[in-house]
Amino acid sequence: MSGYRITALETHDIRFPTSLELDGSDAMNPDPDYSAAYLVLRTDDGSEGHGFAFTIGRGNEVQTAAIRALEPYVLGRDAEDLGTLWKEMVHDSQLRWLGPEKGVMHMAISAVVNALWDLKARREGKPLWLLLAEMSPEELVALVDFRYLSDALTPQEALEILRAAEPGRRERIAYLREHGYPAYTTSPGWLGYSDDKLRRLCKEAMAEGFTQIKLKVGADLQDDRRRMRIARDACGDDFPIAVDANQRWDVDSAIAWVNALAEFRPHWVEEPTSPDDVLGHAAIARGIAPIPVATGEHVQNRMVFKQLLQAEAISYLQIDAARVAGVNENIAILLLAAKFGVPVCPHAGGVGLCELVQHLAMFDYVAVSASMENRVIEYVDHLHEHFADPVVIRNGAYVAPSRPGFGAAMHARSISDHTYPDGLVWRSLDA
Amino acid sequence: MSGYRITALETHDIRFPTSLELDGSDAMNPDPDYSAAYLVLRTDDGSEGHGFAFTIGRGNEVQTAAIRALEPYVLGRDAEDLGTLWKEMVHDSQLRWLGPEKGVMHMAISAVVNALWDLKARREGKPLWLLLAEMSPEELVALVDFRYLSDALTPQEALEILRAAEPGRRERIAYLREHGYPAYTTSPGWLGYSDDKLRRLCKEAMAEGFTQIKLKVGADLQDDRRRMRIARDACGDDFPIAVDANQRWDVDSAIAWVNALAEFRPHWVEEPTSPDDVLGHAAIARGIAPIPVATGEHVQNRMVFKQLLQAEAISYLQIDAARVAGVNENIAILLLAAKFGVPVCPHAGGVGLCELVQHLAMFDYVAVSASMENRVIEYVDHLHEHFADPVVIRNGAYVAPSRPGFGAAMHARSISDHTYPDGLVWRSLDA
Repeated sequence: MSGYRITALETHDIRFPTSLELDGSDAMNPDPDYSAAYLVLRTDDGSEGHGFAFTIGRGNEVQTAAIRALEPYVLGRDAEDLGTLWKEMVHDSQLRWLGPEKGVMHMAISAVVNALWDLKARREGKPLWLLLAEMSPEELVALVDFRYLSDALTPQEALEILRAAEPGRRERIAYLREHGYPAYTTSPGWLGYSDDKLRRLCKEAMAEGFTQIKLKVGADLQDDRRRMRIARDACGDDFPIAVDANQRWDVDSAIAWVNALAEFRPHWVEEPTSPDDVLGHAAIARGIAPIPVATGEHVQNRMVFKQLLQAEAISYLQIDAARVAGVNENIAILLLAAKFGVPVCPHAGGVGLCELVQHLAMFDYVAVSASMENRVIEYVDHLHEHFADPVVIRNGAYVAPSRPGFGAAMHARSISDHTYPDGLVWRSLDA
Repeated sequence: MSGYRITALETHDIRFPTSLELDGSDAMNPDPDYSAAYLVLRTDDGSEGHGFAFTIGRGNEVQTAAIRALEPYVLGRDAEDLGTLWKEMVHDSQLRWLGPEKGVMHMAISAVVNALWDLKARREGKPLWLLLAEMSPEELVALVDFRYLSDALTPQEALEILRAAEPGRRERIAYLREHGYPAYTTSPGWLGYSDDKLRRLCKEAMAEGFTQIKLKVGADLQDDRRRMRIARDACGDDFPIAVDANQRWDVDSAIAWVNALAEFRPHWVEEPTSPDDVLGHAAIARGIAPIPVATGEHVQNRMVFKQLLQAEAISYLQIDAARVAGVNENIAILLLAAKFGVPVCPHAGGVGLCELVQHLAMFDYVAVSASMENRVIEYVDHLHEHFADPVVIRNGAYVAPSRPGFGAAMHARSISDHTYPDGLVWRSLDA
């Protein structure tokens, strides 16, 4: 018992009018308004924890209402009781009917769980990645819910993975503090950009030290071939260029389309089809080999990740910090990836996803996979100025955060100005 | 263009305090308060369409908010424009981030789509099953979204299935009107009931003409064995007794548990594990053969049903009327089941699910599978008195509805009394 209790859960419907620009445009998301269903937890001793679910606009009020529905689960509770609170929210017999463990309700739990971790890390005076990286294997295993995983990963196996990674933790922490964690950038590749802008941004990405870029594809094959050629010309023969279809294809069209891009040697093909289609991803992986498949940003929970790994459907696993049920479920997913030997290359971008997910990748490096090989964190240069502890990119790498917390806190002014529909920004747009 | 437009979408948060009894208790849902996030569509010529998402209590306000978020998609629209409205809601680029196609937002779309069908059937003066059963194969195929399905079912294959079922439609309509559609009852089998009550209800079910019963299992193996023995004794050697674990098990424990019930010959094992675990269901199916696996009430969309069929994971497919995106997506699922030759035995119970799903099973019999063999609709004797057109069970069969609509409309008094938290019933409980 920590002796400090949660006294308030405060929510905010925050939206950025990003659809006015073409930033963030892809084959499935032509006009996103990047948004956050945001919460602040407050405790009786004056501490705070921040968290959010990322959405792309309409429906953010539903996501916010879902977070508010979790208030009775945390009010008056000991904030250190993280594992218990996680299970009570995820397995609540009535709430789980709304999923189970997927969609709006699961993302709401994600936001609250991440806020609890932000709170804990702030109180302990550590950045989240370090807090996790210093926990014992036993403490980490106790954070994971193995329900529905035991055919692929047992608690004993998880413990062995974590114990095997114990030697060298200190060196890897020092390495992170010195070099950071390598990033790739999606900024050049949005569909709405002109060819000139694409070419210029490719060169800038390389000049800034990024070791990989990613292009959005899937709207028009001839456009994709032209854009891939431009990027390949700009970046040279050996530079990794991934492509991302954002779920645009059926299985057969994915195979045909990607094979028509094969001459440009995509580093991976991301989200070729529905994130729910494990067998479809496996069929695509076979049909486009040796081009690898990556997915994860829309994968709903650990059970679907488990199957993607069991079916050998993915070569890169892309965790998202704010879709599955927060830090705890992401630890389960990192352990699954380690068990199957698949590298984790996190999804980021949106609002604050970079700020959050860097902590999970760094924790993975120190304490789970113990490897940086063939691993990069996505980076998109969007909206970081609204965060109190924005990510810092140096020489194409995420600088290891040093300030306490999980990095989710936004500036008070950013919250109030972008509150929908009554914040200053939205009132100005209406006027 | 029909010339009548939608002018209002009205929502109600309706909850029944069913947790006060033990009706509806199972291994995962010990104390449900059966609820409906309910809506009424109104048109400029005075027509109405009713629909709802079923939940089991907490979070029903989030589900209601999700339905309300769909108001801008239907207000002012031609109510006959069903296919277009379906696609606009399901594939809305911003809303789909909240799923995609799963959970709270997808169930909200289900409610609205079903209300549009209720409206259409009322205006045409036909019960929904008959309205659908009289559409041409081409009209039916046009209602289906084949996105993500084409590796398993093409529009041409769907057309062939429907054309093959055209001969005999009239005879099957006549058969339904005379004999109805066979039902099985879950009423004896709730976990909270005493052994005496179980024995008595088994005998009553047989006396009432039901051709199958179902028992909840999964909380305690010795209890399950005792209860199965009681049911088997009461019903005799040849009577089909299905069991339902409501997602209680991991893969290995499912296999062990079900094999420990094998001597009682379960007719099927329902929801042995997470509804998201296609490969898990397939492993269980292999591990308990020849006992068949059934699932579907929590399956989020057509993509997961597709995979359950592709992986030979299920022998019975259990559609639910109010979880996937309404009538249109259920037509896709009925077609998938027909393609793979798997019988559809709908899930029902809850609030109004019997009233809705009977229409889909009857449509399946007339126009899709053209078969009643090895098929039954679940029946639970709960809360029918609140519906304007409650199901009628005669000789253990659903009587074919004859009144116009989809059967979703509740009595005005039932709505107002059970509105949460201010309706009469909830105020009385507080007092």
